[in-house]
Order: sequence, then C-alpha cells, then structure tokens
Amino acid sequence: MITSLQNARVKQVVRLRQRRHRESDGLFLIEGYREIRCAVDARVGLKVLYTCEQFFSHSDTRKLVRWLGENADISIEPVSRDVFAKISVRENSDGLLAVAPSPAWLMNDMHVPPNGLFLISTATEKPGNLGTILRSADAVGVDGVAVCSAGTDVLNPSVVRASLGTVFSVPVVRAEPESVRAWIKRHGIWSIAATPDADRLYTEADMVGPCAILMGSEHAGLDGEWLNSSDERVRLPSVGQADSINVAMAATVMLFEARRQRGSRRTS
Amino acid sequence: MITSLQNARVKQVVRLRQRRHRESDGLFLIEGYREIRCAVDARVGLKVLYTCEQFFSHSDTRKLVRWLGENADISIEPVSRDVFAKISVRENSDGLLAVAPSPAWLMNDMHVPPNGLFLISTATEKPGNLGTILRSADAVGVDGVAVCSAGTDVLNPSVVRASLGTVFSVPVVRAEPESVRAWIKRHGIWSIAATPDADRLYTEADMVGPCAILMGSEHAGLDGEWLNSSDERVRLPSVGQADSINVAMAATVMLFEARRQRGSRRTS
Repeated sequence: MITSLQNARVKQVVRLRQRRHRESDGLFLIEGYREIRCAVDARVGLKVLYTCEQFFSHSDTRKLVRWLGENADISIEPVSRDVFAKISVRENSDGLLAVAPSPAWLMNDMHVPPNGLFLISTATEKPGNLGTILRSADAVGVDGVAVCSAGTDVLNPSVVRASLGTVFSVPVVRAEPESVRAWIKRHGIWSIAATPDADRLYTEADMVGPCAILMGSEHAGLDGEWLNSSDERVRLPSVGQADSINVAMAATVMLFEARRQRGSRRTS
Repeated sequence: MITSLQNARVKQVVRLRQRRHRESDGLFLIEGYREIRCAVDARVGLKVLYTCEQFFSHSDTRKLVRWLGENADISIEPVSRDVFAKISVRENSDGLLAVAPSPAWLMNDMHVPPNGLFLISTATEKPGNLGTILRSADAVGVDGVAVCSAGTDVLNPSVVRASLGTVFSVPVVRAEPESVRAWIKRHGIWSIAATPDADRLYTEADMVGPCAILMGSEHAGLDGEWLNSSDERVRLPSVGQADSINVAMAATVMLFEARRQRGSRRTS
C-alpha cells in the first residue's frame, strides 16, 4: 500500500491535473466508479487503478476491482486515506482513480454514416458545460463530437466527471479548427452555426441531412472564421435577458431539435 | 464602516444562508451587481445594501449604489474586507450584497393569460438546476414558474446566483403541491408530467394551449401524486445512458419545444 505523499507515482497523478502534463505524458485521469465503468465498457485501456477502501461507496466496487485485476493489463495500487485524498480531484470521491493513456481520437478516424449528426465544440471554456454537452450528445445519439483545442481539454478530470462518463460512450475527437473545417467540407456536411446575431431561428434549420452544429465559447461565441465558414447561422429565441441561455443549454436544445426533426427512428 | 466580525448585523446576514432563518426572519440575500440590478428592475424592495469597495469589479457599481442611496428606502452599509469576505456567499464576489424582504409570491396571485405556459418545479434539489430552469423559463418567456416547498428554496442565495437574477424577471411563486394542483385544475390548465417511464415523447404533447410542465426531483423524479394528477405523461428520447439528461436539461428542452410549437409570435 502506498502511504507516502512524497511517492513519485502520487506526484505524477497530481501533475496530470494540468493539461500540459497530460499532453507531455500522454496520460489522463478517470475518477469514480461510474466513469471508470464507462471507460472500461468503451475499451479505454487503464494503466493503473488507485484504490482506497475507506472511500468505497458503490456496492459493486470490489467486483469491478477484482474483474479488472483478472481481465485487464492493469496495475492495482491500494493507497492510504491521506494519499487518496491527495490524488482525488472531486468531492465525495468513491475510492477509485485510474490513470489511462490518452486515446488517439483523430478527426479523420471519425465514422461518417449517411445523414450523420455531429456537434463541434469550438471553444467551450467551462468543464461543466462541456460535460453537459457530451451528456446531451449521448442522449440524442450523435454520431460524433469534435472538441477543438481552443477550449477546455476534453480529458480534463472535471470534464470526464461532468460528462458522467459519456465522454467515453460518445465518439469524441480532439482536433484543430482547420482540420475540423476541412473534414466538414470533405464529407459534404451542412454546418449550422449557433449565434445570437442570426436572423433565422434554429427550428428553421434543416437538421435531417448530414449536419454539424457549431457551438462557440461562453463569452465570445463563435469566432469569425467559424461564422464565415458555416453554411447557415441560427439563433435560439429569447424574450428574456440577453444571455440567459448558456452554451450547454443551447447545445442541448439544438441537439434535441435535430432528434425531433429526425423522428423517433433511433430513439428508445 | 462595519469592521467587526462580531457585529450583530453581520451575524444576521450569515444566518440568512439557512432556509429556516430566511423563513423566520422573512428576509433573503441577493449578492452581486447583476442580481441586485435584476431585483431593482423587478421592484423587489431592498432593506440593506452591504458594500465593500475593494471587491467592486463592475464599472457601474458606484452608479448603482448612488442611485439606490438617492431613490430607494435603503440603508447602505460599507463594510471592511474581512467582514465582506465573511458575509459573501459566492466566490469572486463583486462587493455588493443586499438583504431584502422575502417577496409574498403566492399561487393565487399568478396571472393566467389565455394559453399561458407554466413550469412547475415540484422538488428540484440542486440550486444550480433550479437556477438553470429559471434561466430557460426567462428565455422562452413563460408566464410563470411555481416552485414547491419540497425542493430547494428558490430564495436560496445559490439559486438567486445560478439564475443570474432571472428569479426576479420571471413570475415565480412558492407554493405547496396541493395548492398548485388546485390552481391548475381551477384554471383548466393541461398538466404535462415529464417522466422517463412515459410511452409518449414530449414532442407529441400539445403545448400550444394553456399548459403546465411538471418536473420532479433529480433522483426520484415526480412523485405518485403528481403523476396521478397530471393530464399527460411524456419523456425525452434517449439512446444513451439512462440518466444522461438531468432535470434542468429536460426542463430546458421541454420549454423550448413549447416555444417552438407556439411559433415565434412572442420571440424576439
């Protein structure tokens, strides 16, 4: 059992909270029973699983740890309460924290089915908002989400958490804006920019064919390059305060509108 | 200037974080330039405004304080940095915190226009979710929101904050479930329960006539009494994880669907 707060592995885990260390080490953190289950279901390989029994709160935690020990190429490391408190990112942890190699989610690997529905998060800043966008994308069954590097890192532990693990169940890529725009053009995907300055309402956009919904940042919205490259600009109706709807709620509304237009074919 | 952390008024402000003290004192807290502006615009009377210049961050703060001093029946109390840090509820405060008498928001005072659209928050637990529901209600221009006492208090400082002040711009009432149900029946309002167990999709509900959307708690959803009393039960489509959509997202989607069905008559 690791009990020293000075242990080199403990220090490495703490480093992975920062994007630059995740990028240089090619590793990221997944904390929590539910999130780790989602990652395992999505075949994300785990390298190390840190466990602390005192924090176990989910009834199936021991079963999952045992299963991983028997079936996965993983190192399982029990740690003391103090060490776990140090490496844990969230409040009310449930005693599981995994280190996993960053998936090579590449734009050109994204599968494009006929009439595919995509969401492009060009610059979402808040982890909670990006997590919510991923949850909505999961609920409506999008074919993929592209997260541009200008925004928060989709492998940020708070995004993994806020997404409730849907970051692993939705096809996600991390990409530069240029490669996303080239990909959209190459596949003949209709791009719909969500921007409060548009004349048309989002309900007037045709989201039945292959399309990508473009969402900007919380404060500045979509930048000029995204707006100029888009095929159509739409807005949500608002009779209230100018900015009462945030980017995550706007994305949620647009994704469910796309699902409504497409009918209940694929919905449960 | 109040500089003592032991000052009786300072202690009273801290007490008001708790619902039972808000209820016994008939007072609540409004923190932040934006939220206080919304309250003033909505003619919520303020009793005391605590100010701390060192935290002022909005360019119009001094103008607002001066205006209140000249035009409102309010006591303006500058406090020291330490005192403000003690009474402040939020992170990154902007140096303004007001105490206001709790509005007498009563069910029977709610104006019911023809084809009114209402949202009933029967038991929302998390302040952030209730705040988001109020923001969406503001955006689509609902005619009223009823917040039942089973959930979090709508005058909780975190709700006021998360609503970005829309708690003051949307017609809100606080009520017991029985009086909300009686009011719905009396006004011939069609009540639509959002519940994952429904057969029908929310898009099949007719939300053009007078209607109320019923939302339950984060964990248990709507209770049996609400489900049995409702005219119709609907669900959101989901192909993803069972609970990937939370109550605030579901309310937002349903409110925008109502707005879509009603056309853009009232939208800007």
